[in-house]
Amino acid sequence: MTDHAPELQVSEWLNVDGPLTLAGLRGRVVVVHAFQMLCPGCILHAVPQAKAIREAFPESRLAVIGLHTVFEHHDAMTPAALKAFVHEFRIRHPIGIDRAAPGDPMPLTMQAYAMRGTPTLLVFDRQGRIRLDHFGHLDDLRVGAALGQLLGEAEDTDDAWAQGLRT
Amino acid sequence: MTDHAPELQVSEWLNVDGPLTLAGLRGRVVVVHAFQMLCPGCILHAVPQAKAIREAFPESRLAVIGLHTVFEHHDAMTPAALKAFVHEFRIRHPIGIDRAAPGDPMPLTMQAYAMRGTPTLLVFDRQGRIRLDHFGHLDDLRVGAALGQLLGEAEDTDDAWAQGLRT
Amino acid sequence: MTDHAPELQVSEWLNVDGPLTLAGLRGRVVVVHAFQMLCPGCILHAVPQAKAIREAFPESRLAVIGLHTVFEHHDAMTPAALKAFVHEFRIRHPIGIDRAAPGDPMPLTMQAYAMRGTPTLLVFDRQGRIRLDHFGHLDDLRVGAALGQLLGEAEDTDDAWAQGLRT
Amino acid sequence: MTDHAPELQVSEWLNVDGPLTLAGLRGRVVVVHAFQMLCPGCILHAVPQAKAIREAFPESRLAVIGLHTVFEHHDAMTPAALKAFVHEFRIRHPIGIDRAAPGDPMPLTMQAYAMRGTPTLLVFDRQGRIRLDHFGHLDDLRVGAALGQLLGEAEDTDDAWAQGLRT
Repeated sequence: MTDHAPELQVSEWLNVDGPLTLAGLRGRVVVVHAFQMLCPGCILHAVPQAKAIREAFPESRLAVIGLHTVFEHHDAMTPAALKAFVHEFRIRHPIGIDRAAPGDPMPLTMQAYAMRGTPTLLVFDRQGRIRLDHFGHLDDLRVGAALGQLLGEAEDTDDAWAQGLRT
Repeated sequence: MTDHAPELQVSEWLNVDGPLTLAGLRGRVVVVHAFQMLCPGCILHAVPQAKAIREAFPESRLAVIGLHTVFEHHDAMTPAALKAFVHEFRIRHPIGIDRAAPGDPMPLTMQAYAMRGTPTLLVFDRQGRIRLDHFGHLDDLRVGAALGQLLGEAEDTDDAWAQGLRT
Repeated sequence: MTDHAPELQVSEWLNVDGPLTLAGLRGRVVVVHAFQMLCPGCILHAVPQAKAIREAFPESRLAVIGLHTVFEHHDAMTPAALKAFVHEFRIRHPIGIDRAAPGDPMPLTMQAYAMRGTPTLLVFDRQGRIRLDHFGHLDDLRVGAALGQLLGEAEDTDDAWAQGLRT
Repeated sequence: MTDHAPELQVSEWLNVDGPLTLAGLRGRVVVVHAFQMLCPGCILHAVPQAKAIREAFPESRLAVIGLHTVFEHHDAMTPAALKAFVHEFRIRHPIGIDRAAPGDPMPLTMQAYAMRGTPTLLVFDRQGRIRLDHFGHLDDLRVGAALGQLLGEAEDTDDAWAQGLRT
C-alpha cells in the first residue's frame, strides 16, 4: 500500500517541546485524533478515548497526538481557550493546533486529509502509512483491535506490549 | 511458546448443535469467557463485552464461547436457570456448561485452567495456544488490542477483518 | 382519591423478620418495586434504582420493598435462586416473594395490581393510597420528584429529609 | 425562614428576550445552575442534568436558568465562546452571564451567593426563598426529590405536574 500521508501542519504545540512530525515518529504506531474543544462528540467520547489509548499502550511503541482542527466558531476556540480546555480536562499527551488556511475556514492538515468533521481518528503504522481513517465515534473494541494489529506488525516482537498477552 | 491448553469439558451446549472443541476451532482465534449467571461483574461487564466481541469480528476468523463455570450457588444456577438467562439476555453465541466435578464445587474446566473466579477471559491463538488469561474486568481497548494482534498473526491476511482498517 | 390498594400477598420474606404489610407501614411513603431476577431491565436499572432510593431517604420516612413477581421461567427463578441473587447483588432492603396463584403463571399481588410486566414501580403515600404506578423504566429525576412530593405531604415536616434542603 | 436571596446580576442573556429576575419568577420554583463552559463536572453532569430538569417539569411551574459564573480562564470563556458552547451542546433554556466584578476574578452573583466553585445548584421556592444550595454534583434522585417537594408546596395543586403521579 502506498497511501499518501501528508505531514502535519501545526502552528503551535501544547504539552510537548518542539514540533512533532509523522516522519520523526516513524517506527512507532501513531494515533492522531482530530478534535474541536467545543464539539460534544469530541469531549464526551473522542478525547477520553485518546487519553485511554495513551494509558493503555507504551509511549515507546505508540504515539498519541491530538490535533485541534478548528473549522467553525474560530473566535471561540482560540489557542488561549484550548490551553484552558487542555488544562481543565487534564490532557497530558501532545496537542497540535492545525494551521489556519488563509481565506478558508478549514485548517491545512484537515484539508490535506479531506476530513469531514470532528472527531476524526487517523492511525499510521510504523512505516508511516495511514491505515485507519474514521470520522465519528469508533468503539474501543474496534480501535483496540486496529492498534493491536498494527503493533503486532512491528519488526521487534520480543517485547510484550499488551497487558497479560503472552508472546 | 508451548502453553498447555486443556480441552473444554462441557456437559451441555446451548445455542449450538453438537459439541465444540478447541481442537476443532484450530485456525481461528478463540475467545472463551467464563462466567456465572448470578455474578454481577459478569452480567454488567463480561457478558456484554462478549456479545460486543461477537458483533465486532467475523465468525470465520474468531470464535466466541461462553463457559458457565458454576462454583457456588449450585442450586440457583441450574441448566434451566441458565437457559432462561441466555434467553432473556439475548445471548446468541455458543454457551457450554462446565462439567461438574464429583465432590468438588469447582467444575472441571475451571479446575484445569486454575481459574480464580468469574469473570475470566481466555484467548487462544490460531494454533490453539493460550495467549491471554485474565481474571476480572479487562477494558475493551485492551481486549480489542489483544484480539487485533492475534488476528493479525493469522496466515492469510488478505481479507480485512477490522472495520475500516486498510491492509 | 380513594384508590384501592390491595394488600401484598407474600409467601416468603428475605432481609426482614416477619411479614411486612402496607397497613403496617401506614405513616410512611412506601416504594414497592416489582421485579424478576432474570429480567434485564430489572437488573440493569430497577434494582440499582431501588438501592439508590434506599440510600437517599431515611427509613423512618420511606420504606422500600422489592417484590419478586415471577410470571415466567418459574423453574429458573426459584426462592433458592432469588436468595443467591439478593446475596450477590448486595440487596439489603426487604424482598417479598409474590405468592404463586394456583393454575395461573402470574402471582397474586401482580394480578391484584394488574401489572403488565417487570419492572413495575408502585408508590404509596402516607395514607396508604397508591399514587404512582409505572411499568418500565422511569428516570431518577422523575422518581425523585414523586417521592419528594409525597414526603412533603407528610404531617410532620419538622425534620428535613432531603440532603441540603432547607425547610 | 427568611433566607436572603440576592437578585441575579447578569450582563447578557442568551436564549431569552429581555432580562430575567428572581422577583419576576415569583410563583414558580426556580432552578439556577451556575457553571463554567470549560469545567468538566459542568459539561459531563451539571449541564445535562439542567437540560433533563427542563424536560421533566413544565415551564409554567418551574424555571431553569443557567448562570455562567466565570472565575478563571477569563480569556477563554468569553461571551462568544459561551454562545458557541450553548449552540453546540443544544442548550435551550435561558443562560445569563454573571456580571464581572471590577478588580475581582469572581463575578458579582457568584460573590453574592458565596459560591465555592462550579457547578453550583441553587433552588428557590415559589416565594423566592433559597431552599437548596449545593456545590458539586448532586444525583438526580436527590435533585428530583427537592424539586418534587417544592413543587408540592405550591398553592394550586389541582394540576398534576409529575408524570403518572396521581393527586
